[in-house]
Amino acid sequence: MAFDPGSLRFDANGLIPAIAQDHASGEVLMMAWMNAEAVARTLQTGRVTYWSRSRQAFWIKGESSGHVQRLIEMRIDCDRDCLLVLVDQQGPACHTNRRSCFYTALRGGEEVEIMAPMV
Amino acid sequence: MAFDPGSLRFDANGLIPAIAQDHASGEVLMMAWMNAEAVARTLQTGRVTYWSRSRQAFWIKGESSGHVQRLIEMRIDCDRDCLLVLVDQQGPACHTNRRSCFYTALRGGEEVEIMAPMV
Repeated sequence: MAFDPGSLRFDANGLIPAIAQDHASGEVLMMAWMNAEAVARTLQTGRVTYWSRSRQAFWIKGESSGHVQRLIEMRIDCDRDCLLVLVDQQGPACHTNRRSCFYTALRGGEEVEIMAPMV
Repeated sequence: MAFDPGSLRFDANGLIPAIAQDHASGEVLMMAWMNAEAVARTLQTGRVTYWSRSRQAFWIKGESSGHVQRLIEMRIDCDRDCLLVLVDQQGPACHTNRRSCFYTALRGGEEVEIMAPMV
């Protein structure tokens, strides 16, 4: 079936969560949001493009930082209300310069930092 | 730092997205939502517990299906507005009986089913 971004289920703000996963290692790198146009642009360009809720603008991942996410494959969940994007990530995915945004683990009731900045 | 679920950033509905990942294979299994109490219950019980938006009730994953998610580790992202739960998943995570909810891939502009039901 040919894919139409408009067939996804967006929230009240017209957004859908997109989980970025390293296509090779399986590491979950980050979660951000897309609107229908960001989904279309990601598929057209092969550059993962989110919608920045804070800036209210398209956010081509890595455009300013150089930490580009190249799309390997986009997947849709059973409810069509969440996306999984398998990516080739250049350098850190997190704005803190860590490989992944999920660098804080809960261990023994405490927050533990399990990842150092890459640069 | 001791963890307080209230320190997370919840959306206007008091919810935070939680990504469930197989702790051993790295496979992303599903994404669902938690409120502060669901986060606390998950940590206390070791049974991953979501908030069902459709039923407006706590959803102890696997309670009716038997497809239990045992918590291995919870992680918090840099913005404290998304959770990653590493889990030990019994059987399928998806209500369609597939291992993962992300069984539809976009390939060549088409939707392709890449995973069959387990049972």
